[in-house]
Amino acid sequence: MAEYWATLGVDLHVDVTDTGSGLRKGLTDALREAVRGGRLAPGTRLPSSRSLAADLGIARNTVADAYADLVAEGWLTARQGSGTRVAERAVVAPASASPSPRSAQGPAYDLVPGTPDLASFPRAEWLKASRRALAAAPHDALGYGDPRGRVELRTALAAYLARARGVRADPERIVICSGFAHGLMLLGAVLEERGVGALAVESYGLDAHWGLVERAGLRTVALPFDELGTRTDELTEDGGRGSGATGEGRNGAGGGDSAGGGDGAGGGDGAEGGDDGGSSGARAVLLTPAHQFPMGVPLHPDRRAAVVDWARRTGGLILEDDYDGEFRYDRQPVGALQGLDPDRVVYLGTTSKSLAPGLRLGWLVLPPDLASAVTAAKGRVDWSCGVLDQLTLAELITSGAYDRHVRAVRLRYRRRRDQLVSALASRAPLVTATGIAAGLHAVLQLPPGTEQSVVRGAAWQGLAVHGLTRYRHPTSLAPPLDALVVGYGTPSDSAWPGTLDALCRVLPQLGQQLGQPQEAP
Amino acid sequence: MAEYWATLGVDLHVDVTDTGSGLRKGLTDALREAVRGGRLAPGTRLPSSRSLAADLGIARNTVADAYADLVAEGWLTARQGSGTRVAERAVVAPASASPSPRSAQGPAYDLVPGTPDLASFPRAEWLKASRRALAAAPHDALGYGDPRGRVELRTALAAYLARARGVRADPERIVICSGFAHGLMLLGAVLEERGVGALAVESYGLDAHWGLVERAGLRTVALPFDELGTRTDELTEDGGRGSGATGEGRNGAGGGDSAGGGDGAGGGDGAEGGDDGGSSGARAVLLTPAHQFPMGVPLHPDRRAAVVDWARRTGGLILEDDYDGEFRYDRQPVGALQGLDPDRVVYLGTTSKSLAPGLRLGWLVLPPDLASAVTAAKGRVDWSCGVLDQLTLAELITSGAYDRHVRAVRLRYRRRRDQLVSALASRAPLVTATGIAAGLHAVLQLPPGTEQSVVRGAAWQGLAVHGLTRYRHPTSLAPPLDALVVGYGTPSDSAWPGTLDALCRVLPQLGQQLGQPQEAP
Repeated sequence: MAEYWATLGVDLHVDVTDTGSGLRKGLTDALREAVRGGRLAPGTRLPSSRSLAADLGIARNTVADAYADLVAEGWLTARQGSGTRVAERAVVAPASASPSPRSAQGPAYDLVPGTPDLASFPRAEWLKASRRALAAAPHDALGYGDPRGRVELRTALAAYLARARGVRADPERIVICSGFAHGLMLLGAVLEERGVGALAVESYGLDAHWGLVERAGLRTVALPFDELGTRTDELTEDGGRGSGATGEGRNGAGGGDSAGGGDGAGGGDGAEGGDDGGSSGARAVLLTPAHQFPMGVPLHPDRRAAVVDWARRTGGLILEDDYDGEFRYDRQPVGALQGLDPDRVVYLGTTSKSLAPGLRLGWLVLPPDLASAVTAAKGRVDWSCGVLDQLTLAELITSGAYDRHVRAVRLRYRRRRDQLVSALASRAPLVTATGIAAGLHAVLQLPPGTEQSVVRGAAWQGLAVHGLTRYRHPTSLAPPLDALVVGYGTPSDSAWPGTLDALCRVLPQLGQQLGQPQEAP
Repeated sequence: MAEYWATLGVDLHVDVTDTGSGLRKGLTDALREAVRGGRLAPGTRLPSSRSLAADLGIARNTVADAYADLVAEGWLTARQGSGTRVAERAVVAPASASPSPRSAQGPAYDLVPGTPDLASFPRAEWLKASRRALAAAPHDALGYGDPRGRVELRTALAAYLARARGVRADPERIVICSGFAHGLMLLGAVLEERGVGALAVESYGLDAHWGLVERAGLRTVALPFDELGTRTDELTEDGGRGSGATGEGRNGAGGGDSAGGGDGAGGGDGAEGGDDGGSSGARAVLLTPAHQFPMGVPLHPDRRAAVVDWARRTGGLILEDDYDGEFRYDRQPVGALQGLDPDRVVYLGTTSKSLAPGLRLGWLVLPPDLASAVTAAKGRVDWSCGVLDQLTLAELITSGAYDRHVRAVRLRYRRRRDQLVSALASRAPLVTATGIAAGLHAVLQLPPGTEQSVVRGAAWQGLAVHGLTRYRHPTSLAPPLDALVVGYGTPSDSAWPGTLDALCRVLPQLGQQLGQPQEAP
C-alpha cells in the first residue's frame, strides 16, 4: 500500500530540521521559505500528505498539519480534487526568476536564407513513424550506443543516399551527427591532428563555418569564383591556391604547421596576384558542388573533374556540403561529387533543409581512412543525437514517407520560385535573379552600389533579408557584387504572398533614385 | 496532373548520357551499372516510369523500355502492385557494403554501472507526451532556435528542479545539453578561456570525464577521500590541494597557466606529502555531492559547507554532478548543493539515469556570470539537442508523468537493492556492500588482493562487472581498495534474478582459496 501511494505522488525536496520547536514547525518553516523565495512557483502541486510523510519518514499528520497551517496563512491552497498547490498570488517572484516571453518578436516578413518553411514539417507522418520506430526498437537501442549513431538510420541512409543522390555509401562509414556544423567541427579536429594547416573554401559561404574550422586550428583561404562555379582548377600541387592568390588566411597569425609551403606555382590565370605567392598549403577543400551557397550555380563538370583530379594527385581531401541537394526544380538534381571518388570525398548531408533544423540531424559519409578517426573524435564526448529521432528518421526513410515529403515540398518551393521570378520580371526589372534552378534561395543582383541601402530599406519595412556581402570570404578576390540573398523557402505558405510583395516594394525601381530607401507606406 | 504524380514517386539519381546509341541505351546502362555496383540495393523500389521520366525530362516510354530491358536481363523485377524493384539475387554486393549485424552480442549478465534498466523506459508515456508536445508547438520551434534550448523545457526544469532537488533555478540561466559529458566539455572550454589551469576532482570518478577536461586544456588533480566523502576541506586558499598533495596532475606537462602557484600551505593533515607542495592551482572543483560516484556516500554536511566556504573565499567554482539525485531509497534525497549558493555552483543534471542515456539530454543551471559564456560556447556549434525530445520532456515533466515514472522505477530499484543486500548476507558473507542508500549501483568490498581475479572470474562466467580500480584517479592518495562496482540498475527485471545469482557465484566464498576463479558450472 505504501508503495502504491508512493508512485502516485510527486517529488518535493524540503530540508526539515527539528530546531526544538518540533517537526511540524520545522516543516512549515521550510515549506513557507520555499514558497516565499520563489523556489516553489505559484500553481505547483505539492505531494499528498501521505506521500510526503513517507518520503520524509515522518508521521502523516505532521505533514497534514503543516499544509493546513500554510493554507491558513495563504501560502498554499487546498481544493477537493486538485490537491494542495502553491497559491497563485502568494509570491512576489524575484524579477530574474520569471521566464522571458516565448521569443523576441521576429520580423514581419522573413527572407533570411537557411531555414525551410517550418510549417511544412510533416508532423503527423513524423509521429506515425515515431510510434512505429519505438514499438520496433530493442531495449538496448536506448543505451549509450555506437558513437556513429543507430545502425537502423545508417542503413536507411546508405540506401537512400545511393538511390537519390548517387552517393556510394556503406553504413559502416556513415557517422550521424547533429547537423553540418557538428560534422565540420569533427572533421576540423581530425584534419588538424593530421597536420592539415589550411582548408580551401569558396569565395562565398557562411562565416560561421569558416569560424568553426579556424577554431579547430586551420586557416581558411578562398578559391576564386566565376560563372562556372568555384575555380577548383586553381588548387595547386602543394594544395595551395594558384598564383592568383593574395593575402593571408583570416587566421594567418595562427601557429602554422602549413604543409608544403612552397611557392605554389600553379598555372593560375586568375585575378591580379598579391605578395603571398599561394603558400596557403590547403590539403583539403570545402565545396557546395550541387548548388553553391549562396550563389546558386552548380559546380561545372570540368571543375568537378578538376577537384577530384587534384585530390588524387596530391592526396587532398574534398568536403562536400550537400545541404539542399534534394531541391532542384527543372531537371533531376545534380548527383553527389562523392560518387566520383568515395576515397577522396567526405559527403555531408542534413535534415535541416529537407525537414527542419530543429531536429539537429546530419550525417557524414566518410572515406575508409577517416571513418575511425571521426568516430573516435565524436565518441570522446558521446553526444550522439537522441536515438528516438534517429530511429524515427530511419522509419520515415524506409517507409517512403521521406521521399513523399521531399517531393511534396519541392513542388511548393518550385511554385514560389516561379512566382518570385515572375514578380521580379514585372515589378523590378532592374533586378536579375540567379541561382534559381535549385534550392530554397535565390541571388538577386542589384544595380551597383545599392545593396546596403536596399537591405536597410527592407529592415525599415519589417522585411529581414541578407545582402551578399556578408557571405563573402575576407580573402576572396572576386570583385564585390551588390546583391540580395533571398530565402524564399523561409516563409510559411500563408506568409509568402505578403512577403513577396514586401520584397518587390523595397527593390530598386526604374527611374528611382538609387541609394534612397523608400518610405514606409 | 504531372505534379500529382511527382509527389507519389521516390527519388532516383541516374546520370544518363546519350552516347550516340540513344537515350534508352544510356538509361539502361546507367541503371544496370547502379545495380551491378551495389549502389541500388536488392529490393530497392524504383520510381514509376512516369515519375522518373518527368524527373529526367525524357519520354515515359524510354524509361518503360529501359525497365523492361533490365527485367529481361534479370537485374530488376516487376510485379503488379509492388512496382519495379531491384532483383533480390541479381547482385553480389561488395563485402564492405553489407551492414554489420545489429551489434556485437553483449555479455550474458550485465552489471556494468552507468545505465538504468532500459526496459523500464516509459515508451507509451513518452509517445503520448510527444504527440501532445508536437500538437502544441509553434512552427518556429522547429527552427535553429535558442542555443540554450527550448524555453518550454527550461521553464519546466526550473520548476521541477526547484521542487524536487532544491535547486534555485531560473529558466534564463539553464542551458540544455546532450548529457553530462557535453555540459562538462562546454564548462571546460569556458574555464580554460578564463585561465583556470586545473580542476580538482574526486579520488574516484570516471576517467572519460577527466579526459574531457584535460582535452580542454585543464589539469585534473584528485582530492583525498574518506568515510565522510571527498575532503573538500583540503582545497587550499590558492585553490590548490593541501599539503597532503603529491605528484603532478595527469596532464602535468600541459601549458600551465596555473593561477597562484604558491606553496599551497593549507593546514592539511592528510597523507604523506610529496614534492609538489600543492601547487595545483585548482580554482574549480567537480563533485558528486548527493551520491559519490562510484563510492556511494553523500558528501558530509561539514564538507558541503567547507566547499561552499572555499568557493566564496577564493572565488572558486563548484561543478555539481547530480547524475542520479532522484534515486534515494530510505529517506528523501539529499538536496542539491547548488541551493546553498547558486552564484558559486554549476548544477548539472541528465535524463541518462532517470529515463535513458539514448535521449542524450542534460542541463546546466549556471551562475549569472557564466550563463552567457556557456551559451556562447554552445552556440558556436549550435548542436543543440533535437527540439522534439526537448518539447516532449517538458510535457512529460509538466504533466506529472516524469514524477510518476521516477517514483515507479525508484521502487523497483529499491527492491533490487534489498535483494542484493540479502543475497550477499546469505551467500557471500565475506563481502560488504557500501553506498547502498541511493543510486543504481553499490560498491562491494572484497578481501584484499582479490579484485582482479573476481573480475576475471566473472568475465569467464559471462558476467560483466567493473572493479573499483578503474575508477581511481591516477593522482589519488587513497590507499587502493579491492572492490566491485555493481550496477544493479542495469539488467532488465527479467534478467535480474539470474544476474544476481551469477554475481553471488563469482564472489569469494568462506573457505575458498582466494585468487582462484571458479569454474564455469
